[in-house]
Amino acid sequence: MAGLSAAVRNVVEGGHLAHLVTLNVDGSPQVTIVWVGLDGDEVVSGHLFLHQKLRNVARDPRVAISMETGRPGPGGLDEYLVLHGTARVTDGGAPELLQQLAHRYIGPEVKFPPMDDPPPGHVLRITVERVGGNGEWG
Amino acid sequence: MAGLSAAVRNVVEGGHLAHLVTLNVDGSPQVTIVWVGLDGDEVVSGHLFLHQKLRNVARDPRVAISMETGRPGPGGLDEYLVLHGTARVTDGGAPELLQQLAHRYIGPEVKFPPMDDPPPGHVLRITVERVGGNGEWG
Repeated sequence: MAGLSAAVRNVVEGGHLAHLVTLNVDGSPQVTIVWVGLDGDEVVSGHLFLHQKLRNVARDPRVAISMETGRPGPGGLDEYLVLHGTARVTDGGAPELLQQLAHRYIGPEVKFPPMDDPPPGHVLRITVERVGGNGEWG
Repeated sequence: MAGLSAAVRNVVEGGHLAHLVTLNVDGSPQVTIVWVGLDGDEVVSGHLFLHQKLRNVARDPRVAISMETGRPGPGGLDEYLVLHGTARVTDGGAPELLQQLAHRYIGPEVKFPPMDDPPPGHVLRITVERVGGNGEWG
């Protein structure tokens, strides 16, 4: 799809928890909550270790992310954003991304990851193919 | 699995938005946000119309639900609950269930569904097979 709208970018960068869905080897859904940001039009999250969700993406790149905004949406029901797309995993860069996101999600003074010598880890990069949910984007 | 723990039941009945994942015909994940409650050990949601998520469940019953609790969890990160399981769709009962859930999710005075003569709709019933997330249940 073309670039993300300003409204969508604002939600993704708004410090809301992201419910990330990947697909297990048997095709069943797996869900974890992650912090997200943007790198250009890619939605990015940082991971110090090769979690199940990353192994899932390496095998089947189809993912979805959903986020509550905490605001009322159209129809008076809760506003939320759903992004469907495909993801890839790149090596390294996780501590730097997590530190940047921790400032947004926890606070300006926090050190995250908390350990002194974190592994380089991995960055999950999602290309958005469809936007849904309940909002001006839905 | 055996019955749900008190901690899990409290979250499911706590008025938190539920991110419901179903599987599309091509196996990709579909996500919508729903209100949920309990009927015995089944997680239930009400739907006036035969939405895509219900058609998905009729074809492939594997679902996941994730909920933020708004509390800090183990490790200082946000607490959340993930339920993986299988779902079935039963006919009727949606207006009554939605009215009951609306009292919990919106307020004691609300009339929901707002229309005077809603269709009987459908109830989605999830049997939980695995509990995860970040919490005393994780």
